[in-house]
Amino acid sequence: MKQPVTLQKLQKYVAKRDNKKNKKMDYFMKFIEEVGELSEMIKKDKRLDPEDERAKAIKNTLDEEIADVLYYLVVLANINDVDLEDVFIRKMDYKEK
Amino acid sequence: MKQPVTLQKLQKYVAKRDNKKNKKMDYFMKFIEEVGELSEMIKKDKRLDPEDERAKAIKNTLDEEIADVLYYLVVLANINDVDLEDVFIRKMDYKEK
Amino acid sequence: MKQPVTLQKLQKYVAKRDNKKNKKMDYFMKFIEEVGELSEMIKKDKRLDPEDERAKAIKNTLDEEIADVLYYLVVLANINDVDLEDVFIRKMDYKEK
Amino acid sequence: MKQPVTLQKLQKYVAKRDNKKNKKMDYFMKFIEEVGELSEMIKKDKRLDPEDERAKAIKNTLDEEIADVLYYLVVLANINDVDLEDVFIRKMDYKEK
Repeated sequence: MKQPVTLQKLQKYVAKRDNKKNKKMDYFMKFIEEVGELSEMIKKDKRLDPEDERAKAIKNTLDEEIADVLYYLVVLANINDVDLEDVFIRKMDYKEK
Repeated sequence: MKQPVTLQKLQKYVAKRDNKKNKKMDYFMKFIEEVGELSEMIKKDKRLDPEDERAKAIKNTLDEEIADVLYYLVVLANINDVDLEDVFIRKMDYKEK
Repeated sequence: MKQPVTLQKLQKYVAKRDNKKNKKMDYFMKFIEEVGELSEMIKKDKRLDPEDERAKAIKNTLDEEIADVLYYLVVLANINDVDLEDVFIRKMDYKEK
Repeated sequence: MKQPVTLQKLQKYVAKRDNKKNKKMDYFMKFIEEVGELSEMIKKDKRLDPEDERAKAIKNTLDEEIADVLYYLVVLANINDVDLEDVFIRKMDYKEK
């Protein structure tokens, strides 16, 4: 994936990989599993080591878990036909009124 | 906020609103609270009504809860110095090797 | 329900109220919803007011949310045929070896 | 631990092992981590194998994860001075009125 990553690009990217309407509950449970792993990593506060090699360093870090939670949140948005950009803009405009 | 919404724009936008390093745990608990509300809305499957007025319609819908979870996930990324775009690209490249 | 409350009594009590095998996912989502509310209450640290009347006081408190999470955890144990007493004793004995 | 396991016995048992008031947030995060693992096990539906040896069989099963979530829920009850038996009886009486 290339920069800049927009919410729309993110949704399309994820849709190509995980987008089975009949696996709705599996995706939700996977999402909760990733939230649990994020909790573990925040607790341990295990970060990416900038000295380490890029590809390996991300495994089992807070950074990786945030990416995983984001990934499955986008899956949930996709299978529920939620346009993240639209909904985010709308929500934020509403809050600021 | 204007289109297109990139992950970088999203992080900057959220950082202006919620970015207190000493409230790390409060943000995490707020995040879990929003995950719970998302669960409730997926269960009820309450969607945005396109016939309804835009600003009001989003309240108490699955769309709103996904936006809320995304918001607090971005807060968690910010206060933990995680660059969402960087980490997402890295993670995805790694998976595809 | 009368004292003392054993895990077995708790499982029987809950089974009479919520025990539909075909609602497995609904119960899980309800459980996550309650976990979210518990998170909210721990954050707010809103306790039971001993001065207040007993029945009313428990609403929207940390105490109530812990009871709710426990209730749905027991539902999950029941519909998955897990004997809480048996599994807890086994787990704890194993940890102490 | 011996049968019957009452909620009071459970709270005392857990209090001897994990009861540090200054680790409140760590316990909450551990609780969420265990909820994530429970989600994973419900998704996989990996049960206790009655043919397998008792002590080993429980590892990485739905049964174990339910016990773990229960354990940390009891920790949260303890450090927040919640009497599970009292609160459960009160809540259930209230619901049935």
